[in-house]
Formats: sequence, C-alpha cells, structure tokens
Amino acid sequence: MAKDVESAEQGRGFSAKDYHDPPPAPLIDAEELTKWSFYRALIAEFIATLLFLYVTVLTVIGYRVQTDPEKNTVDPNCGGVGILGIAWAFGGMIFVLVYCTAGISGGHINPAVTFGLFLARKVSFIRAIMYMVAQCLGGICGCGLVKAFQKTYYNEYGGGANMLQHGYNKGTGLGAEIIGTFVLVYTVFSATDPKRNARDSHVPVLAPLPIGFAVFMVHLATIPITGTGINPARSFGAAVIYNKDEAWDDQWIFWVGPFIGAFIAAFYHQYILRAAAIKALGSFRSNA
Amino acid sequence: MAKDVESAEQGRGFSAKDYHDPPPAPLIDAEELTKWSFYRALIAEFIATLLFLYVTVLTVIGYRVQTDPEKNTVDPNCGGVGILGIAWAFGGMIFVLVYCTAGISGGHINPAVTFGLFLARKVSFIRAIMYMVAQCLGGICGCGLVKAFQKTYYNEYGGGANMLQHGYNKGTGLGAEIIGTFVLVYTVFSATDPKRNARDSHVPVLAPLPIGFAVFMVHLATIPITGTGINPARSFGAAVIYNKDEAWDDQWIFWVGPFIGAFIAAFYHQYILRAAAIKALGSFRSNA
Amino acid sequence: MAKDVESAEQGRGFSAKDYHDPPPAPLIDAEELTKWSFYRALIAEFIATLLFLYVTVLTVIGYRVQTDPEKNTVDPNCGGVGILGIAWAFGGMIFVLVYCTAGISGGHINPAVTFGLFLARKVSFIRAIMYMVAQCLGGICGCGLVKAFQKTYYNEYGGGANMLQHGYNKGTGLGAEIIGTFVLVYTVFSATDPKRNARDSHVPVLAPLPIGFAVFMVHLATIPITGTGINPARSFGAAVIYNKDEAWDDQWIFWVGPFIGAFIAAFYHQYILRAAAIKALGSFRSNA
Amino acid sequence: MAKDVESAEQGRGFSAKDYHDPPPAPLIDAEELTKWSFYRALIAEFIATLLFLYVTVLTVIGYRVQTDPEKNTVDPNCGGVGILGIAWAFGGMIFVLVYCTAGISGGHINPAVTFGLFLARKVSFIRAIMYMVAQCLGGICGCGLVKAFQKTYYNEYGGGANMLQHGYNKGTGLGAEIIGTFVLVYTVFSATDPKRNARDSHVPVLAPLPIGFAVFMVHLATIPITGTGINPARSFGAAVIYNKDEAWDDQWIFWVGPFIGAFIAAFYHQYILRAAAIKALGSFRSNA
Repeated sequence: MAKDVESAEQGRGFSAKDYHDPPPAPLIDAEELTKWSFYRALIAEFIATLLFLYVTVLTVIGYRVQTDPEKNTVDPNCGGVGILGIAWAFGGMIFVLVYCTAGISGGHINPAVTFGLFLARKVSFIRAIMYMVAQCLGGICGCGLVKAFQKTYYNEYGGGANMLQHGYNKGTGLGAEIIGTFVLVYTVFSATDPKRNARDSHVPVLAPLPIGFAVFMVHLATIPITGTGINPARSFGAAVIYNKDEAWDDQWIFWVGPFIGAFIAAFYHQYILRAAAIKALGSFRSNA
Repeated sequence: MAKDVESAEQGRGFSAKDYHDPPPAPLIDAEELTKWSFYRALIAEFIATLLFLYVTVLTVIGYRVQTDPEKNTVDPNCGGVGILGIAWAFGGMIFVLVYCTAGISGGHINPAVTFGLFLARKVSFIRAIMYMVAQCLGGICGCGLVKAFQKTYYNEYGGGANMLQHGYNKGTGLGAEIIGTFVLVYTVFSATDPKRNARDSHVPVLAPLPIGFAVFMVHLATIPITGTGINPARSFGAAVIYNKDEAWDDQWIFWVGPFIGAFIAAFYHQYILRAAAIKALGSFRSNA
Repeated sequence: MAKDVESAEQGRGFSAKDYHDPPPAPLIDAEELTKWSFYRALIAEFIATLLFLYVTVLTVIGYRVQTDPEKNTVDPNCGGVGILGIAWAFGGMIFVLVYCTAGISGGHINPAVTFGLFLARKVSFIRAIMYMVAQCLGGICGCGLVKAFQKTYYNEYGGGANMLQHGYNKGTGLGAEIIGTFVLVYTVFSATDPKRNARDSHVPVLAPLPIGFAVFMVHLATIPITGTGINPARSFGAAVIYNKDEAWDDQWIFWVGPFIGAFIAAFYHQYILRAAAIKALGSFRSNA
Repeated sequence: MAKDVESAEQGRGFSAKDYHDPPPAPLIDAEELTKWSFYRALIAEFIATLLFLYVTVLTVIGYRVQTDPEKNTVDPNCGGVGILGIAWAFGGMIFVLVYCTAGISGGHINPAVTFGLFLARKVSFIRAIMYMVAQCLGGICGCGLVKAFQKTYYNEYGGGANMLQHGYNKGTGLGAEIIGTFVLVYTVFSATDPKRNARDSHVPVLAPLPIGFAVFMVHLATIPITGTGINPARSFGAAVIYNKDEAWDDQWIFWVGPFIGAFIAAFYHQYILRAAAIKALGSFRSNA
C-alpha cells in the first residue's frame, strides 16, 4: 500500500521497461492446431469446468434438500451449508481449478474470461472459440453427473440453474452480471499482468487465490438476484441439463452480461491502467 | 515465531541496514500532477471503492431481505449469508481490491488508510486529499448502483448505512471505530514496511491477504455495535445515498474514529516499532 | 491465466527441459528401511492422521450434540458450527497437516493419496504399504481419543462414521467418492509436479492451501450423500471405533471409491497432462 | 506431497547441511535487557494480545447477545456470527497478529507458544518470562476494554471466559487443551524450522496462515467442551475481568493443559522429527 509513490514514479518512463510484454496472440495460429499441448489444454478446460459444475451444483442441490421445510421436520431452517457455503463452493473451486490448470491451459474455466483475454490479444481466436466449446461441454457433463446421481432432487430443486429471482427485473439481472464479471475479469487481468508481476513481488504469488475470492465475493452479493452466473458455461450447462422454460427464458442475460463485463474489464485494464490509449495519443505525457 | 532472538539481534545496529527507507514524500509534489500515473491512480481508487461498496452493500441488503420474518414464511431465521457472510464480503473485497490496485495506486480504498500513510509521509498531501475525494465519490456511486438495482429493498433495509445500534452509546461506538481502524492500519503498516520486507521472507508475500483478514476480523467484532465503519468513504457513501437523519446523526463517529485510529497506528508503527523516537533521543542505546 | 499461449509454446519441445523429473521410485527399496528418516516419516503420518481424525470427528460430534432438538430447548436449529464448519474442519486440518508434514513424509495423511503417488512411481511399494498402515492406525487412535473424551455423545451421534445417507444408492455413493478423490489427488499432482514448479512461479508456493481447499470443496458437495470419505484411513478409523453394522456395511465404498479416483487422477496427470502416452506413441508430434 | 522420497534421501546425511541451526538461546542473556529491541518486543506482545482478546471476546459477546431468545423476538436462533464466526475470529486474529508482530517479537501472543519455544532454546528464560507477563497484561486489558464498552452484556453473557461446559469432566477438558495446544505449537515449530525452511520452498512462505488455521481448527473442535483456551493469556485475562467463581475454578486447566501440550510438541519436534534423540544415541544410523 505504501508503494504508490514509487510505482507511480516508475510508471512514468515507459522507455526503460523492467518487464516483458508478450507479443499479441495472432487471430488464427494454424501451427498451434498441430500440437498436443493445444488439445491437452482443451481437455484440461473440459475436465476443470466439469468438476466445477459437479461440485458446485451438488452443493446447491444438497443445500436445498436439507432446507426444504416439508422434508425436514427437525431442522427445516438451518440444515445444509447455507448460502455462505454455496458461495464458498463456487469461489473455492475456482481457486483450486485455476491453481491446477494454470500451467496447462491458462486456467480460464469460463468463457467470459476467455473472451476478455482474447480481447486483450492473449489468446488466438481459434483457441478462444475452442476453449469456450470445451467449457460448455464440461459444464453440461458436470451438471449431467449431478442429475445422474440424484435425478429426483435435481429436478425438484431447480437444477442449479441461473434464473432471475422474484422481485428483480431483467435490467437489474443484466447489471448484476456485468459488474460481477467485471470484478472477476479485472482480478484476472491484475493477477496476470506481466508489468506488475515484474514490479510487485506480492502480486504474482498465488494468483489463483484472489481470483477465487473474487468469485466468492460476487456470489455473496448476487445469489439473491440471479443465483450468480458470471460464467456462461456454468449457466449454459445447468440450463441444458435442467431444460425447463424458466432456465432458458433468462439465458441470454448470462451470456450478454458476462461478455459485456469482460469487455469493460479488458478495456479498463488495457486502456486506463496500462495507459495504452494515452500512449497512442501521445499528447498527455509531454514530459516523457 | 522463533525468529525473535535473531531479529532482535539484527535490530540492534541501525548502521548496517539491509533495507531501503524511501525518502519522505513531499507535502506538495507539483510534478506528480503532470503525470498520467497520478490520474490513473485516482481512477483506480474510485473504481475500487465503487466495487467495494457495490458488493458489500448488496450483500447486506440481500441478507436483510432474506431474514425479514414478514417476507419469508418458510425460513425466516436463517436465510441469507449471515453476519459471517457480511464480514467475509467486506474483508474479502478488501483482499481482492488491494491485490488488484496495489501496483497502480497503492491500494488504499479507505481515507483512513490514506490518512495514516500521509502521516507517515508515504504519500504527499495533495495525493492524500485527491485519493480521499476519489474514494468518497466511489463510495457514493457504489451505493447508488445498489439503490438503482433495488430501490425498495434498499430504503426498507437501512441502505447499508453505519449507525450506532440500539443499546450502545456514542463513546462505545467511537471507541470501537478507533480500535478497529487501528487494527487495520497497523496491519497495513506491517505489510508494507520496507525494513521488515527485506528481513522476513514471509512478510511481503501476499500482503493483501492479512489486510483483508484484518477487515474481516473487525467486522466480526463490531457489526453488532456500529455496523462497522473503519472506512469513512464507506460510511459517507452509504449516508449520502440512504440520506436519512439516523445515518447522518452519527456520521461524525465514522470520520473521527477512523482518523484517530489511523493516527495512533501511524504513531505506534513509526515511533514504537520503528524506534524513531528512541533514535531521536539517542539516550537509550548507548551500546549502539 | 494469460500464460496459456506461452506455456503451450514451451510445452512443445521436450528436449530442452527446464525442470528435473526425479527417477521413478523403485518398487522395493531395501535401503530406505535402514534409515531413521523412513521411520520418522511413518511416525509423522501416524500423528498427522491421528490429529486429523481427532479434530474433525470432535467437530462433527459437537455439531450434532448442539443441533439435537431434544437436548437443546433454546436453539435447536442453529447451534454448532454448521455443515460449513464441518467442511472447514476437514479442509483446514488437511491444509495445516500437509503444511507441517510435507518436509518429513510428503504429507499424504490419506491412503488414496499414497496410492496415487505410488502409481506415479513417486514412492516405493514398501513405503506406500507402510504409510497406509500408519495412516489407518492414526485414524483409529484419533477416533478412539474422541470416544474416550465423550463416549455417550460419540455413540449417540454416529461416531463420525461414513455411511450412505438415506435416499442415495450405492452407485451414487461410489461415484461421489470416486470424483471427490479425483479432485483431491488431481490437486496433489498439480501442486507437486516438478515440471510446473519450474515454470509457474505461483504454483509451488503454499501448495498445501489448494490441497486443503480441494478437501473443503468436496466436503461441501458430498456431506449430504456419504458424509464424505475420500480418505480410507478416515473412514476405516471411524468404523473401527464406532463399530456398528451400518458403518461396516458401506465400508467397501470408502476404499474402492477413493482408490479408483486416485487411479484416474494418476492416469489423467501422467498420460494426458504430462503427455506420457503421446510421447510413447510418437505419432502425434511429427513436428517435434 | 511427492517430495517424500527426495526429502527422505536428503534427510539421510546430516553432515552436508543446507541449513543453519541458530545456537541455543542462553538461559539468561543480560545483554538483551539493555536493548530497545527487547522492550519493543514486549510492547508488541502486549498490544497484540490486547487486540486479540478485544476482537475475539467482543465477537463472543456479540454472538451471545444476538442469540439470546429472551432478547430477540424476531430471530432468536440464527443471529450473530455463529460458532463458526467465533472460531474464525480467534484463528483469523492470530493469523493477522502473527503476521504483524513476527518481525518484532517473533509473534508469540500466547504463553504456551513462548513456553514451547523456550523449551527448544529459541528464546532465553528471561525473555520467556517477560513475554508471558506482557501477554497476560495484554489479555487483561483487552477484556477490560470489552467490559468497558458494554458492561451489562459482558457480565450477562459469560465474559468470554473459558469454563468446562456442562457434560464434560475435568479430564476431558484437560485432554482437549493438551491436544489443542499440541496442534498449535507443532504448527509453530513446523513453520519456523530452519532446516525445513531451507529445503521446501513452500514452507516458509506466509507461515502465519497455517498457524492461524491451526487455531481456527482447534476452536471448531473444542468450543463445545471448554470454549477453547490453548492460550493461558486469553483464559487468564478473561478470568481476571469476568472474575466469577466459575471462571476461576477451572483456570488451572487452561494453564496446565497448554503447557503440557507445548512440552509434548517441543519434544516431538526436537526429538522425533529433528531426530535429536537418534543422533545422540548414534546407534540407529550405522550407515550414515
């Protein structure tokens, strides 16, 4: 926290960089299609998203089974892990899975994150599309596993699908998804910025932890509004397996919202915090 | 924990320093006003405080909606994330946001932190004032977003505003704010001390985590007393948007308390732990 | 997260390795039997598993005492730490104990983890067998301590034994154990992979934390199904001390499931993520 | 986790050490009494223990106020932060305070930790005694602050004092304190062992976190039995300020138990894990 003056000083001169900006990823990189590491990354994204949906939706269903007042005569109110436990399940799984897959695929596990990193030219177009397909397939399979394990409960208790809750309109839901995804993708950009990694020793260490916490925080805030998507693969997978009208009616919110949020986060990071816009204009920094 | 003897030994001789104390920040630094990094830091503080208030106040309102016995016939008692979840929201957001903004602005997100670092001459006077303005504007906009999303609930459930709870007098509230802010600002100083960073390898790593935990802890303890301010931008933003008498009546507590707490923490760190007073006196350490 | 392209690039050429793969452990290493460090490791595994069962089963029993509606006239519903607290107890203890014993025995504390690491040839056969014996003995002693402390409560409230909960069939229980153990052992492999340790600076730091979180997450999801085993020493120790038919009837699930899960995780890590299979085939990577 | 073979191998030869064992602290070190760093450490221990008791006891009292069914007609069951929140308060404060004071005093904040480190000759006798006095004074002042803030509630709700709960005998309470303190002091030794610090890169990083988690875990398990002491300064401070017979009757348990636990942990670490006994005997390792 006390580093602001120093880092502001250091931020002045872009000429003497102490970090390495990787070149922008090409839109289409034919060569990466010939490599095993590309397909391995797709498998890792698929498995990670599968595990993510499996654990989180199972937690949601377990919570709702145990808090159903008609089923539980003894402790109808406080069974299950609580909404706090659900928020932990989402945030904690992202922490664990980003930690596990960061070195294999980059640990996106979320089409909105992939979209944001594509906008910042960190991944190629073809890789971005393939990741999203793998993530959505993983989400479907993860929810499918939960349904296979406990079909009655799954259908009875909403299937972990994202829907607008009673009392909130579509604009609020969309806004909640936009800002929630912004928080997540902004944290991802901050955790992986090569400029800051070189400068602040505490930033790159254990980057998956703040990313997981960002997911945890957003769930605490917006579970009462939309159940919290901020991950189109999560919303899509649950909708496909639950497959009822109420899950599909609002589905667009959970794609449009996260993609807008990721776009704003990419813009904020690249053009405000990294000052790309200012550098391009060249007008503001006459003293450089 | 076993390092006390060694570090005490090392602490003896100030002549052979293994760390670098940056020079005190000037009171007014005209040059920093000409740099983009200064304005970028203001934007980062504004956005971070906005996100902080947005997520935390949304969590508070969601909790109170779900625990309202008149609205919820099924589970009137245990809905929502609980006070524990609210405390996590405040602490966790500070962890995430300090992590994200530490390299841009120093990650204050709190006028009391800025005030403490100004007293220790870590930031210039003009920067301190501008940070506080940005933080307060961010707090107002964050609460405004919550109100825009759910106006009825927002007004009905207290707007997340800090107020003295029934059964506590103003002295208790002021004391709780002073000690709570002391815990936070003391942690900030410990996490960013260049002397200790050089010496103890476990101190600088992931400094935002203990800072977030300090906020979490103080909320666990003092939510029942004042709702926990320890951040004037948070209290001010909520009061402006909620704008009822009961929020404004106690507002002074949430400015005076945190500033006194930050002052004591700065004094404790600079004059007791860093021994600046003793060095000045020169009397105690004849063996140096 | 943005490293995927780079690490994919780096993953291309296996010739220029920046990491050191230790040679496979021999099946039988007679020499290690002559060393104190081997027996010290067994003691550390025994003590760690004992403490693990002691703390977690005590937490489970304490929770059930306080939520018994016949005993507690005042707050029958929400006493105790909740299922969230139980999940924390299991995950948090694994974090602490892996941290404490990692340098002594490798910090397995779980026969399924030992089995997975044996499959990957990280430990010798004799070491794996002896570890499992030490872990099971530790689990028995840990549960025995809890029973010695509060015999009445222990027997009355299920003894912390893993059993299939009402409404779930054996296939579901087995599946839950397989996937849960897969999540854990996959995290263990990710945290200790020498290839990734050399490459991603955030991976090796504080590896015990994501391992503990993996355990925490799986408990959140599957406590309602089986009480969550994913650790045969934990299930076996509780069954021996509780020693009722319902604990023994499903015991095989808590051995077969974790061992299958560990097998899949070892296969996934060694043959998919480390590409051992592809290297052996030699067909896919003509451009290497 | 996969390091066991390697570290076992490395553990074989004590001749080629890659670490530095500091010499044992003298029993009485007259010179340290002449240094400011010694008194500064006492102040830091005093302030840290004060803050520890202030935050944790305030959390306990706040929880009990809000769960009193006679006071709260609306939500008698689920107000407050829950026992889980109380356990977090104790564990989280230890994390924050060890982090803050580790470089100044070693961050003991607990006479049992000081006693264990004294047994291992990490601190001198005079330092150990003075630390304990500072810790007890801090504990008294911290509880005094809570009582000053809310005298009625403080006396009405047990003052945060440690007492044997109904249904448990003294032997159980003593055993719970012994094992609980063993878990804590064992973690402290593991986190600060110079041998392991040199060898395992993930051990020394953020050592305060597992220490805080150890405290958190033990509270989850034993709050229902004794309220959890494992820190004589915490139990003593609460007893002095609460000052009723029931708090004093069991006070010996909260001194004898933690000191026995710390003794066993010191013995376990020094003689089993560090193999001091074996080295002395010299018989077991003929191949060395």
